[in-house]
Amino acid sequence: MIVGKVVGNVWATRKEEALEGMKLMVVRRQDAVTLEELETLVAVDFIGAGIGDRVIVATGSSARHAGRCTSNEPVDATIVGIIDEVEVQEP
Amino acid sequence: MIVGKVVGNVWATRKEEALEGMKLMVVRRQDAVTLEELETLVAVDFIGAGIGDRVIVATGSSARHAGRCTSNEPVDATIVGIIDEVEVQEP
Amino acid sequence: MIVGKVVGNVWATRKEEALEGMKLMVVRRQDAVTLEELETLVAVDFIGAGIGDRVIVATGSSARHAGRCTSNEPVDATIVGIIDEVEVQEP
Amino acid sequence: MIVGKVVGNVWATRKEEALEGMKLMVVRRQDAVTLEELETLVAVDFIGAGIGDRVIVATGSSARHAGRCTSNEPVDATIVGIIDEVEVQEP
Amino acid sequence: MIVGKVVGNVWATRKEEALEGMKLMVVRRQDAVTLEELETLVAVDFIGAGIGDRVIVATGSSARHAGRCTSNEPVDATIVGIIDEVEVQEP
Repeated sequence: MIVGKVVGNVWATRKEEALEGMKLMVVRRQDAVTLEELETLVAVDFIGAGIGDRVIVATGSSARHAGRCTSNEPVDATIVGIIDEVEVQEP
Repeated sequence: MIVGKVVGNVWATRKEEALEGMKLMVVRRQDAVTLEELETLVAVDFIGAGIGDRVIVATGSSARHAGRCTSNEPVDATIVGIIDEVEVQEP
Repeated sequence: MIVGKVVGNVWATRKEEALEGMKLMVVRRQDAVTLEELETLVAVDFIGAGIGDRVIVATGSSARHAGRCTSNEPVDATIVGIIDEVEVQEP
Repeated sequence: MIVGKVVGNVWATRKEEALEGMKLMVVRRQDAVTLEELETLVAVDFIGAGIGDRVIVATGSSARHAGRCTSNEPVDATIVGIIDEVEVQEP
Repeated sequence: MIVGKVVGNVWATRKEEALEGMKLMVVRRQDAVTLEELETLVAVDFIGAGIGDRVIVATGSSARHAGRCTSNEPVDATIVGIIDEVEVQEP
């Protein structure tokens, strides 16, 4: 999974039917240690993440095994955890 | 999923039979916030996207769970939403 | 899918049995618009692509849904179309 | 699989139910030969890896075939081995 | 698939049970044409590759359709061919 920060929402009226009612959020990937800002992605949220939250995102087919997905949705990124703390022990 | 802009069409007479009748579009990936232009990909469109539209693209096996795909097509990128607005709240 | 140019063939006598008789080609990925040359990959060809052809390549599990694959082959990249034209409308 | 070094833990109270009780670790990918430090990821650990361990991480759908996963979890990276030694013979 | 050179072995006493008895090799990815050296990965070998061999590696879920894998192993990279020759026709 990757670590990122929720930075926004995406609105799309015309979309795949399976995405109806799903909350689509913009996540900016970060280095988990240095917090360096990396690429953005759009992830579905089923657990109530909000703007500014640091989150764990599952990608690929694994993203279809979260929330109300039945593994048959056109979804390749899902927020699977809201981070309380990243405890790093790098010298 | 990734955010991109539809920049063109791809025409291929000789192709896998499963792709017959599918609309193949060139999408340039963008950073969802800065709009920095990134790599290109070819995505199938089932929802009527046009040149210039900003879109959400699902990739990998998830792309086969969209439109008229039955999960058995040689398709790894599908346009799943046409973006109305990306609402960013990054300081 | 990605756009690339077929630049060569790969010969391997010792290989997984499932690859016997498959034509393995070296494809150099290109930016679909600028034609900038990117990384190389090895893709299976079932549709008769030749050196110099610009092609569409499906990657990942989707590559196993093309040609004579039955979705059980150790194949992660397949040429799925020979490009006639990329019609770009980028300003 | 990729080689990395375990550098920390991630704590997330609110998360997908399937992740309850799973140990989530921050792994920094490394070049297996030069030890150059690369990107970070969050991987599940079922084999008792600790901070500072060099590990092998399986990614993508393959990560769901490890430990107590039943292939239906929103998990895309799992530690599958703790490295004793990387024996390199590069000139 | 990608092209790489086998540069070493990885030893891990503590590992996923499914990996017992599998030969884990360090492969350095190369550009198939320029031989530029790229990232490293750990790939399983079922076909007898040795140090110094140039090989074809299948990645992702496709790696689980090789050798004695039954598609249920935590394996995401497998050596599927030992290269005799890459015949390039790039001007």
